[in-house]
Amino acid sequence: MRRAFALLLLLSADPLLAQGDARPRAREAGVTVGILEPGPLNAITDVAGVTVGQVTLPRSRAVNTGVTAILPHGGNLFQDKVPAGFVAYNAFGKFMGSTQIVELGEVETPILLTNTLNVAEAGAAAVEWTLAQPGNEDVRSVNAVVGETNDGLLNVIRGRHVTIADARRAIDSARSGPVAEGAVGAGAGTVAFGFKAGIGTASRKLPAALGGWTLGVLVQANYGGVLTIAGVPVGVQLGRYDYRQQVEDRKADGSVVIVIATDAPLSDRNLRRVAERAFAGIARTGSSFSNGSGDYALAFSTAQAVRRTTDRRKDVASVQDLPNDRISPLFQATIEATEEAVLNALFKAHTVEGHRGTADALPLDKVLPMLKKAR
Amino acid sequence: MRRAFALLLLLSADPLLAQGDARPRAREAGVTVGILEPGPLNAITDVAGVTVGQVTLPRSRAVNTGVTAILPHGGNLFQDKVPAGFVAYNAFGKFMGSTQIVELGEVETPILLTNTLNVAEAGAAAVEWTLAQPGNEDVRSVNAVVGETNDGLLNVIRGRHVTIADARRAIDSARSGPVAEGAVGAGAGTVAFGFKAGIGTASRKLPAALGGWTLGVLVQANYGGVLTIAGVPVGVQLGRYDYRQQVEDRKADGSVVIVIATDAPLSDRNLRRVAERAFAGIARTGSSFSNGSGDYALAFSTAQAVRRTTDRRKDVASVQDLPNDRISPLFQATIEATEEAVLNALFKAHTVEGHRGTADALPLDKVLPMLKKAR
Amino acid sequence: MRRAFALLLLLSADPLLAQGDARPRAREAGVTVGILEPGPLNAITDVAGVTVGQVTLPRSRAVNTGVTAILPHGGNLFQDKVPAGFVAYNAFGKFMGSTQIVELGEVETPILLTNTLNVAEAGAAAVEWTLAQPGNEDVRSVNAVVGETNDGLLNVIRGRHVTIADARRAIDSARSGPVAEGAVGAGAGTVAFGFKAGIGTASRKLPAALGGWTLGVLVQANYGGVLTIAGVPVGVQLGRYDYRQQVEDRKADGSVVIVIATDAPLSDRNLRRVAERAFAGIARTGSSFSNGSGDYALAFSTAQAVRRTTDRRKDVASVQDLPNDRISPLFQATIEATEEAVLNALFKAHTVEGHRGTADALPLDKVLPMLKKAR
Amino acid sequence: MRRAFALLLLLSADPLLAQGDARPRAREAGVTVGILEPGPLNAITDVAGVTVGQVTLPRSRAVNTGVTAILPHGGNLFQDKVPAGFVAYNAFGKFMGSTQIVELGEVETPILLTNTLNVAEAGAAAVEWTLAQPGNEDVRSVNAVVGETNDGLLNVIRGRHVTIADARRAIDSARSGPVAEGAVGAGAGTVAFGFKAGIGTASRKLPAALGGWTLGVLVQANYGGVLTIAGVPVGVQLGRYDYRQQVEDRKADGSVVIVIATDAPLSDRNLRRVAERAFAGIARTGSSFSNGSGDYALAFSTAQAVRRTTDRRKDVASVQDLPNDRISPLFQATIEATEEAVLNALFKAHTVEGHRGTADALPLDKVLPMLKKAR
Repeated sequence: MRRAFALLLLLSADPLLAQGDARPRAREAGVTVGILEPGPLNAITDVAGVTVGQVTLPRSRAVNTGVTAILPHGGNLFQDKVPAGFVAYNAFGKFMGSTQIVELGEVETPILLTNTLNVAEAGAAAVEWTLAQPGNEDVRSVNAVVGETNDGLLNVIRGRHVTIADARRAIDSARSGPVAEGAVGAGAGTVAFGFKAGIGTASRKLPAALGGWTLGVLVQANYGGVLTIAGVPVGVQLGRYDYRQQVEDRKADGSVVIVIATDAPLSDRNLRRVAERAFAGIARTGSSFSNGSGDYALAFSTAQAVRRTTDRRKDVASVQDLPNDRISPLFQATIEATEEAVLNALFKAHTVEGHRGTADALPLDKVLPMLKKAR
Repeated sequence: MRRAFALLLLLSADPLLAQGDARPRAREAGVTVGILEPGPLNAITDVAGVTVGQVTLPRSRAVNTGVTAILPHGGNLFQDKVPAGFVAYNAFGKFMGSTQIVELGEVETPILLTNTLNVAEAGAAAVEWTLAQPGNEDVRSVNAVVGETNDGLLNVIRGRHVTIADARRAIDSARSGPVAEGAVGAGAGTVAFGFKAGIGTASRKLPAALGGWTLGVLVQANYGGVLTIAGVPVGVQLGRYDYRQQVEDRKADGSVVIVIATDAPLSDRNLRRVAERAFAGIARTGSSFSNGSGDYALAFSTAQAVRRTTDRRKDVASVQDLPNDRISPLFQATIEATEEAVLNALFKAHTVEGHRGTADALPLDKVLPMLKKAR
Repeated sequence: MRRAFALLLLLSADPLLAQGDARPRAREAGVTVGILEPGPLNAITDVAGVTVGQVTLPRSRAVNTGVTAILPHGGNLFQDKVPAGFVAYNAFGKFMGSTQIVELGEVETPILLTNTLNVAEAGAAAVEWTLAQPGNEDVRSVNAVVGETNDGLLNVIRGRHVTIADARRAIDSARSGPVAEGAVGAGAGTVAFGFKAGIGTASRKLPAALGGWTLGVLVQANYGGVLTIAGVPVGVQLGRYDYRQQVEDRKADGSVVIVIATDAPLSDRNLRRVAERAFAGIARTGSSFSNGSGDYALAFSTAQAVRRTTDRRKDVASVQDLPNDRISPLFQATIEATEEAVLNALFKAHTVEGHRGTADALPLDKVLPMLKKAR
Repeated sequence: MRRAFALLLLLSADPLLAQGDARPRAREAGVTVGILEPGPLNAITDVAGVTVGQVTLPRSRAVNTGVTAILPHGGNLFQDKVPAGFVAYNAFGKFMGSTQIVELGEVETPILLTNTLNVAEAGAAAVEWTLAQPGNEDVRSVNAVVGETNDGLLNVIRGRHVTIADARRAIDSARSGPVAEGAVGAGAGTVAFGFKAGIGTASRKLPAALGGWTLGVLVQANYGGVLTIAGVPVGVQLGRYDYRQQVEDRKADGSVVIVIATDAPLSDRNLRRVAERAFAGIARTGSSFSNGSGDYALAFSTAQAVRRTTDRRKDVASVQDLPNDRISPLFQATIEATEEAVLNALFKAHTVEGHRGTADALPLDKVLPMLKKAR
C-alpha cells in the first residue's frame, strides 16, 4: 500500500506522463469511428465494477515497461468467477491461462498485461494475490491470466525488470474512473506502426432499443502494418509504410492484447464471439497481422445474472442469457471500441527514447490536417 | 458439354450481364486499396493452373441463383491433392467438407459455391464428378467442399432450383483467364451492405525481394455492416447504414465465403493462417460480422513442391516449405486482395429484381465522387 | 407414410434381421462395462422425447446400406432448437453441419447417419423435411446435420443408392421405444475390428445423489484396432489383430459417429465436453483411431430449461445450467454408454455378404467363453 | 552444477526412492499392454537425443513436489526448434506456452513439468535458461512451455516451494538413459486412482515394415476414475472406485500431462494428431476425465529432416514428411506407450505421507494375482 502510494507520487511527477496528458484522445481531437456512441468515460471502466490498475517502472533509457491490471469486479474474483471467452487470432505470443478459460468458460483472477519476458512474474503475482484474498484459504488451484507484448525496442527486456511485487501493486492500485493511456503500465514501452503506442481504451453504450448494454475495451497496442486512422491511410501519407523494409527487418512484428468487458448477460460462447470481433477493429487500423504478432482477445461479462458465484456452482442454477439473435449490436460495439482504443493509445502516447531506438509520438500536427482534409 | 455450350449462349445474351460488363471494376474506376500490386488479371486465375467455372440459372423474379466452381489445378484433384487451410470466422453457415480439410490439411475436389439450400446438390455434384474422373475407379470416399451464402431476398431459395447437373456444369466449364464478376454464378442473387453484390476477385503479386509469389482471392459477397470503400464510410454518406433497423430486421445478416489460391509452397498450417487474414480484408469493407453471417475462408497452395501426389502419399516424401518467418507478405497480400475482391463484386454487380425485393447496383455516380473528394 | 409402412413390412420379413434379433445384446450375454446402471431400455431412447428411425435398403450382395435418424424431440426442431456440442476426434470424414453447431451451440434438424457417398442425399432430406414442417413456411436457412461412415466393403458405395426419399422415410419413421441394432439403417454395411458391426445403443441413469439424469448414446460403428471387450483383448485371442497387415491394407480404417442425448440442463460448452468423453469409450473397445477414421461425436440436451424456443430467442431469457462442478458423473456415463453401445452393435450384428467380401458376425460362441474365463 | 551434484547425492540417499527402486516396472512384473514392442529402455529417452532431468525437493510431510524437464535435443533449442503438436483434452489446468506452439507448430525451449502453483517459477526458469544459452544473446522473446498437475494432497502447494533455481537445476541435470519413475520430480506428490503415482515413461519401436520409428512417452500422472490395468478393473476389485464419493469429494479430480517424442519426420499437424491419441491410452487406464482434470498432451519430432534450424527458417526449405497414409502405426504406438507409462508411474511409486493424507503405493501383492487370474 505504502509502495503503491509512493508510486502514484512518482507517476504524477513523471514529466513524460505530463506530456502525455497534454495530448488529446482521438475523439477530443475530432476523430470518431463507427456509428455508436461511447459511454461517459469512453473507457473499459464504463462497465460498472470494472477497475484498472497500472504500474509504470521508473523510466530510463534501459527501462520502459510496466504492468496493467484489469479486475472484472470488486468482490472475490476466485469465488465469484465471471464467464469469459478467448480468441487467439495470431498466436506468436505467451498468453497465460487461456486453455482453462476456454474449457470452463470463465476467469477467476485479475487479468494482467506486461512485457513478454515477465509473464511469469505477473502470473506469480496473480496466484499470490488470489491465495491471499480473504475467503481463499483453501484454494489450491489458481488460473492466472496474463497477456503480453514485446517492448524490447525501448526496454532492456532481457533484464526482466518487472517483479512480482510490481505486478501485485498494479492489482492493488486498480480503480474505477478514467484510465491513463499511452506510454503507461504495460504500454510503457510498446510501439505500433512505428510510433509510440501503449495502453488505450474506449467504450460503446448501445441505445435502449438495442439492449442498452455497455461494452468497454482496453488494448495493449504494439503491432504493425500501414497505419490507417478512420479510414485514412495515414501511414502511407507519412511515409511510414515501407512494407518491404518492415518485413525484412521484422519491424512489422509486435502484438496486441485486447480485453473486453460488458454488462450484457452473455454465455461464454457468445463472449468468445465478441472477442473474435475485436480483430475487425484492429484490421481497420491497418494491421497486417504479421507472422510475429501475438494477437489475443479476452472478453468477460460482469452481469450478476451470469456470474458463477459459489452458490451457482453447487447445483443446477438459474442464469440469464442474451440469445444469439440479439448479439449483433455488441459485435458492432466491439469493433468500434477496439479501433478507437488503439487510436487513443497512439494519440496519448508521448515520444520515448529507449535502449535500441526512439519511438516518436504520432505527429498530430501532421496527422490531424490529413484527417480533416479527408472528411 | 452440349448443355454448357447452350448455357454460355444464354449467358452472353443476358441483358443484365451485359449491363454488368459495362460497369468498371474498382481499380478501373480509380479505386485502389493497399500497397502491393495486383497480378495481370487481378483475379484468382493469376495463380497458374487455377480455373473458375460459373453457371447462372436462367433469371426471373423467382430465380436468381447459381454455382461457382474453383479448381486448384487441371489434373486429377483427388489423386494429386493440394494442401489447404480453413477458417470459420463466424459460422452461421453450412460449409461442407471443413472437418476433413482441417484434419488432413488438404483439398481433393473442386471447391463449389452456391446458395444455402442447395449445398447438398453441389456436394453430390462434387462427389459424382470425382467418381467419374479417369483414374478414380477405385475411389470410395470423397470429401466434397461446398460453401454457400443465402440469396433468399432475390431468389426463391426454398425452391432449391440448383440441380446436381447445374453444379457439374459449373465444374466442367471451369477455365483460366478473366473471371466474370458481380451477379453471376453463386453470386447471382447475393446482396452486400444493401446493394447487389455477388462474385468478386482480385490478386496480388509480391515483389521478387518478398518471394515473388502470386496470391489470388475469389469472394461470394453477401453480408452487411456499414459499407466502407478504401476507408471512406460510403454507407453512412449514402444513408444506408441505419444500424438499428438493420439489426432489428436482421438485414445485416448474410455471409461471405472467401477462396484463396497461392503458388507459394505453404504448409497446411500456414495456409490456415493465410485464410485467417482474409477477414481483415472483410473488416475493412465495413462488415460487422453480425450473428447471422456465415463467414468462411479456405486457402490452398498450387505449388508442385507441396502437392500431395500419389507418389508423395506412399512414404516419407520431400516437400518444400516457406517458413513462418517469410510469410508476412502473403498475409498482407491476402488482406488487400480480399478487400478489393469485395469491391469488385459490388462495382460489377447490376441491379437485380427478385421475389421479395430489389437489390440496387452500387450507385457509382454518387460513390465515385465521394471517393475522389476523400483523396 | 404408406412407404414407411411398406418398408416396415419389408424389414420384418428380412431373414437377416430376424437372425440379428436372435443374437443377444452385450448385457443380455452377461457382459457389463462400467459402474453405473443403464436406463430401462438401455438405449438412447431412454432420454424422454428422443426418437429413432431407421431405413435399411433392400439387401443384396451389392446393396448393404441405409439411414438412421435421431430426433431430439417431437416438436418443431427448427423453431425449438436444442443446445448441442460437437467434437471431431479424427476427422477423416464428411460430417455435415458441424461449423454452425459449434458457432451457435445448437441443432435445429434431425440428425441423420448414412454412408459416406450419400451424405448429400441425407442432407437434402433434412432440408426438405424441415422446410415442409408446419410453422416453417418462412424458413430460408437450414443447418442439416449428417454423419457417415464408409460401408464400401459390403455395399457398392459408388452406386450412391440412398435417395432423398429413403432419408425422409427414416425421419418419418422415428419412434420412441427399443432401437434396432446391428446391421440395420446406417449400420447395414459397416464393419468394426474385422467383424460385422453397425448401429448400437446404450444408456446410463445416474443415481439421484448424482443428479438422476439420463444419458443415452447411439453409435454407427465402423472402425478398427484390436477388439477389446470389457478389457479382454478378444481381437488378439481370436487372431484378428495382425496390425501390420491391417495398416498396410488400410483395413484398420473406418469411422465411428456417436450421438449422445441427455436430459440434464447443459450448456453447449458442457455438451461439447460430454461429446469429447465418448472417445474414451471408443478407446476402451480397442480403437487405434487410425488415420483413415472419421470419428465424430455430437451431444445434445433435451431439457426444456435450456431449449432454445422461439420465445427464448427473442430477448434475454432465463435458462438453467448444470455447473462445471457437477458434470463429472455425466462424463463417466458417456464413457460407459459409448463402450457398451459399440459392444451392442457387434453383438447384435449378423454375418453379411457383400460385393467385395463378407463380414462375419462376432463369434459369440468363442468370445463369451473368453470373457467368462477372464472374470 | 554444484547444487545439482549435491541434489543427486541427496536423491540417492532418499530412503523412499530406494524403496521405489525396489518396485518393478509394469513389464518387469509381467504386465504388458498392446501389440507393439518397446524400445531398449522402454522410456522416452529411447528417442535419440531426448534427455530428462528431474529435481525432487527435499521431502517432508509438507513438501512433496519437484520439477521434471524434457529436452528435445542437446543443441540450442531456441535456434533449432522442433515441430510440435498440442492437444488439451480437458483443460482444467495451467499449461503455459500452448497458443504459440499451436500457431507456429514448434517448441523452442525445454518442456517443464511441476505443480500447479509453481508454473510461473518453472516458466521463469525456461526463459532465463534460454536467454543464457550461448548464441541467444539477441533473443528477446521466449515461449516457455510448462505443464503441471496438482499435488496439493501430499504437498503444501500454497507454499509455492519450487524456485526458479530448482527448475533450472532440472534442466541442467537432463541426461539420456533410464528415467527415474514414480514419486520423483514433478511426480513427487501426485496421486492417481487413489494411489501414489507420479512420473512414468514407456516407448514403442515400430517394425521396419511400419517405418522403424521410435516413439516415447513420459507422463505426470495425477488423475482419477476406476483403475484398470491391462483391461482388468483393478479399482473395482480393490474397492477403490466408489464413484459417488469420488465425485462428491472431488477426489476424482486431478490431471495428467503427457509428453511424446518421436524420431519420425512428422509435420506439426500430424504431431497434433499423435498427441490426440495419448488420451486413448489414458482412457484405457480407467480415467473418467472428470471436470477438474487438466489433461494435456504435447508431441514433438526430433528428426533432423524436419527440425527448424536457423538455416531452414530463412527461406524456402526442403523438409521431409511422413504422409497421412503412413501415420497410423505411430498412433497405435502412442496409445500403447501412454497406457504403459501410467502403469509404470503407479508400479514404481512408493507410499508417501503428506500434509493432508497419505497416498499408498499400489499394492502389487494384491494386484498382480488379480492380473494373473484374468489372463
